[in-house]
Amino acid sequence: MNTPLRLGIAGLGTVGIGVVKIVQTHGEMLARRAGRAIEIVAVSASSRTKKRSADISAYAWEDDPVALGRRDDVDLVLELIGGENGTAKALAETAIANGKDVVTANKALLAHHGHALALAAEAQGRALRFEAAVAGGIPVIKALTEGLAGNRIERVMGVMNGTCNYILTRMEATGQGYNALFEECARLGFLEADPNLDVGGIDAGHKLSLLAAIAFGTQVKFSAVELQGITDISLDDIRLARDMGFSIKLLGVAQMTGRGLEQRMTPCLVPEAHPLGQLDGGTNMVVIEGDSVGQIVLRGAGAGEGPTASAVMGDVIDIARGFRLPTFGAPADTLIEAPAAVVSSAAPWYLRMVLLDKPGALAKIATALGDAGISIDRMRQYSHDGAHAPVLIVTHKAASDDIRHALDRFAATGVLVEEPVAMRIEEV
Amino acid sequence: MNTPLRLGIAGLGTVGIGVVKIVQTHGEMLARRAGRAIEIVAVSASSRTKKRSADISAYAWEDDPVALGRRDDVDLVLELIGGENGTAKALAETAIANGKDVVTANKALLAHHGHALALAAEAQGRALRFEAAVAGGIPVIKALTEGLAGNRIERVMGVMNGTCNYILTRMEATGQGYNALFEECARLGFLEADPNLDVGGIDAGHKLSLLAAIAFGTQVKFSAVELQGITDISLDDIRLARDMGFSIKLLGVAQMTGRGLEQRMTPCLVPEAHPLGQLDGGTNMVVIEGDSVGQIVLRGAGAGEGPTASAVMGDVIDIARGFRLPTFGAPADTLIEAPAAVVSSAAPWYLRMVLLDKPGALAKIATALGDAGISIDRMRQYSHDGAHAPVLIVTHKAASDDIRHALDRFAATGVLVEEPVAMRIEEV
Repeated sequence: MNTPLRLGIAGLGTVGIGVVKIVQTHGEMLARRAGRAIEIVAVSASSRTKKRSADISAYAWEDDPVALGRRDDVDLVLELIGGENGTAKALAETAIANGKDVVTANKALLAHHGHALALAAEAQGRALRFEAAVAGGIPVIKALTEGLAGNRIERVMGVMNGTCNYILTRMEATGQGYNALFEECARLGFLEADPNLDVGGIDAGHKLSLLAAIAFGTQVKFSAVELQGITDISLDDIRLARDMGFSIKLLGVAQMTGRGLEQRMTPCLVPEAHPLGQLDGGTNMVVIEGDSVGQIVLRGAGAGEGPTASAVMGDVIDIARGFRLPTFGAPADTLIEAPAAVVSSAAPWYLRMVLLDKPGALAKIATALGDAGISIDRMRQYSHDGAHAPVLIVTHKAASDDIRHALDRFAATGVLVEEPVAMRIEEV
Repeated sequence: MNTPLRLGIAGLGTVGIGVVKIVQTHGEMLARRAGRAIEIVAVSASSRTKKRSADISAYAWEDDPVALGRRDDVDLVLELIGGENGTAKALAETAIANGKDVVTANKALLAHHGHALALAAEAQGRALRFEAAVAGGIPVIKALTEGLAGNRIERVMGVMNGTCNYILTRMEATGQGYNALFEECARLGFLEADPNLDVGGIDAGHKLSLLAAIAFGTQVKFSAVELQGITDISLDDIRLARDMGFSIKLLGVAQMTGRGLEQRMTPCLVPEAHPLGQLDGGTNMVVIEGDSVGQIVLRGAGAGEGPTASAVMGDVIDIARGFRLPTFGAPADTLIEAPAAVVSSAAPWYLRMVLLDKPGALAKIATALGDAGISIDRMRQYSHDGAHAPVLIVTHKAASDDIRHALDRFAATGVLVEEPVAMRIEEV
């Protein structure tokens, strides 16, 4: 048997304790699979004495997590603290500089500093792995970087924030509005300390930027993600979309186009019959499209102690086995700086608006669309109270800037009662 | 850059040519990802001059595929011939004996000889990989052996024969019977030369036996798989199942129980709302349940040139990167000979029968069930022509041998018009 792999764990919250439990419960199984023992040597967290669901008394303690990165008896540091800067970043940098491998569940850290950290790790010949940072327990990074490595990836899509998907599917199932369900999530503890990370799409956007970098061989660039959260989704939109056979999802999409790299995390309509449209509650789903493999769909729990710890352990076992893969699947110094596509690829769009009920109002909207070069697939005007006329339009494929031009023209008609709603229909 | 990885490809059918195309099209991409060039050196197939969709003139030719296993200029042999014995087996054995790595798409070979071949490969320190043998393009073996390696696997399930799933979903969608759709599959070229490999469940059973060995650390044992094909599925059953919210699938299930290893490839009812119930047409799906990760669902094309070649290339790239994993995820000499569970774990069952329409017939059936220790969840008697009474029963959870006893008791009542239909309802 080879020498044990010695872990230092920084952060003993949900994920950290989940990892401790797996190592304590499955020691023999892990050693058989990895070909060597996996041992916890030292830990660090904000409180040493806090009551925890696993016994950590056998491990050395560090008050300062960064000190784990300097211990001679630690081979691999697990950064499970979180946060894009501060201690997490200092720990990752220190560990790499001291020749240690690093596994993290920290999407914010990687989305903001992933390229620099990958360069540093590869210069040291060390691994920096982050399976747990994207879509919880789903081994999606492994699928992209290894199982599907023979493919040119054409598109990656994902529903990767369980809280948002919970809110949207509960709106559809119960007819409760966004605000009521937001409150429910707050009560249930489903929200990040800053809820905008969830409902503003930032958390999911971090994950998308990481998948995009891996899929397209680009330097991770979170600031280029087009972000829109779910706070403005109305029950009306959910019902109207459903009437037409669609579900509304906070959907991340990344694809390389002739105009650059598209990265979007926005509410989209997807067909109810596709697995994306069927995805209920807090579950995550990632869809990968490759030139050989076609469409692969991966579904599983996106958060929680067990699923996230499972993903961390997948990385740990790879490192124990001696598998050395560049952080983003290809050497960091080969990753390109892709320009961001300002205009998204063409797609059908869902447009909902309320018009003044006066002669010619609908004609003005139809004319504005035509002037913007957009043709109409379906249009419905709904029965109304006499003063206002709700109108729903599904367009044929249109570029996002044509849609923007059309919305500007709508505003100029003077017949809109309120800001129109425009959502992309993602073809899957 | 490291030395190139030199391939010898045996078999230039759909899969082999797919691999040739990927290597020819994506050479630069593969080299960047793998850290070294991947080159085809030599090939072999039944005909050298057959018209093919890729140019093979640059490669050395061997009339005898087994000779590829002895060439000094080949590092890795791709066995893409097929068949459980004969040339495929001789080639794999020869290549391993000559210190070469082997990648195969051959489920029959591995299901029958996988343990012996794995022992041989590991004794030589070589890799024997078979991602393409199970569920086509879905990287499921990688998920089980690596991404989810921190989990004790609790159950693996899969719909892994596209032809069977095509027939069942077309029966449901079109109301055509089994025989008509079997003929359609024959016309469309969806069937193996021996159709019983497909519709008898053998092909899918091979795949299940491989997943079970990996999931539970056991020696692969195809002969222990309980096999039942789809030839007896009637439109009546499909309609009645649907009325109750279920779909009928040829479902593989493997789980370790206190009574041994269960391996079943049989028609089952699954909830329509679960991804398994939603799976249409020729697509494959594998469901993995682990003690930490919960339930992971993987979906994709189960066959075809691109998807299968994608899986082969995943293995090739792993080997190019130097990743050395035992064939079944843990060293072959640690794999246990698990006893086969003769009695399957308890589940609800679907029972359909046609009774003589005479007083007391239904009571006799209900009594027989009770005497077998089985309680009834739902029972329906359908309107009928006066002579025969169709009856549908859904039981509460029952062991498979109790169901067998009940069926024996039914036969003894003398009120059955025909053999009853019994299918397990798999709880997912």
